[in-house]
Amino acid sequence: MIPTITAFENSPDRGKGLARDMRVRWALEEAGQAYEVRLVSFGAVKEPAHRALHPFGQIPTYEEGDLALFESGAIVLHIAERHAGLLPEDAHARARAITWMFAAINTVEPPILELVTAKFLEGDKPWSEQRVPLVKDRIRTRLGELSDRLGDADWLDGAFSAGDLMMVGVLLRLKASGLLDEYPNLAAYVARGEARAAFKRAFAAQLLAFEESAF
Amino acid sequence: MIPTITAFENSPDRGKGLARDMRVRWALEEAGQAYEVRLVSFGAVKEPAHRALHPFGQIPTYEEGDLALFESGAIVLHIAERHAGLLPEDAHARARAITWMFAAINTVEPPILELVTAKFLEGDKPWSEQRVPLVKDRIRTRLGELSDRLGDADWLDGAFSAGDLMMVGVLLRLKASGLLDEYPNLAAYVARGEARAAFKRAFAAQLLAFEESAF
Repeated sequence: MIPTITAFENSPDRGKGLARDMRVRWALEEAGQAYEVRLVSFGAVKEPAHRALHPFGQIPTYEEGDLALFESGAIVLHIAERHAGLLPEDAHARARAITWMFAAINTVEPPILELVTAKFLEGDKPWSEQRVPLVKDRIRTRLGELSDRLGDADWLDGAFSAGDLMMVGVLLRLKASGLLDEYPNLAAYVARGEARAAFKRAFAAQLLAFEESAF
Repeated sequence: MIPTITAFENSPDRGKGLARDMRVRWALEEAGQAYEVRLVSFGAVKEPAHRALHPFGQIPTYEEGDLALFESGAIVLHIAERHAGLLPEDAHARARAITWMFAAINTVEPPILELVTAKFLEGDKPWSEQRVPLVKDRIRTRLGELSDRLGDADWLDGAFSAGDLMMVGVLLRLKASGLLDEYPNLAAYVARGEARAAFKRAFAAQLLAFEESAF
């Protein structure tokens, strides 16, 4: 059965692949799983029909027969559990890969989300100029720790996994800030993720969806 | 094999059960799994020996034979996959319970973490008084959406699951703020979590650890 995901029409990142549907598209491409996309507007996600799928009025969602999921992390894990290539077969290595998925979204992403909030919701506030450097320093703390752990390895724990997919997906949000370039091994790590054929297919698909809905 | 977790000695919340070891203790108690605790200081978690277990220098960690994990969400999922009582057997219900785990930490917790940051890291900044109400409003948006979805149900999706455990664990952080009381069904939901025998055992254990290390 071909699953259907939702993504924004006219994505707010203008096709840069930073919306969370990108993480799910990438996982589906790594898994070799065909999928369909239903594009939704910013208004539509806040309507009852979409909230029945996603209580918080966001994208992506995932529908497969009578199964309906939301949360990109949960969807990526669901895909990874059902296809080869995203989680190791060894039970311990599998648990560690899932640990990195959680580390990406619950330890590395929160200060990055603070920077997004600072820019888009508080960019016009009188404290913005003084506060943003503090938020950036909190991000640097996490990046430094991640950089130390990664060292000169290609991926966080052996072969590429759903943990790397989520971590690269989170770090991509920092590209425009320049923060990533302060940690050359992390910049190279993200570039390795972007160089994967599955990433490129997912990126091209979300860009096409943006371009087609923008004109 | 009895797993060993780490928790803070002299916990910064002074035994209120808000540190993330509480989520793991609670899951272990729900699962009926005995465990050992190694208490660590704020200084020790930043040392190389602990960072080998937890790259970001935090608690909790989880060691079971030669398996070492970090991230409370990943540890709770690991426990839930290996014991009855935290994840439904039906595959679809299981996937939905995991979705709520991710929703707790990646959608509901980020604005709550912003409030923690605003209080503890920026409480003395000149913008604090003006900014905190904005952060609280962003939390209210999430709480309102969660309250709408929960309605008058006891738990988020059928029987109590690891999804509820994580969500209650996240919402507990708001108790002192009074925000939870604005949503009576959420306050009752958290109270139902706290009333569980497993929660009480976990809470008593972390309180005892605080009291013994504080005196």
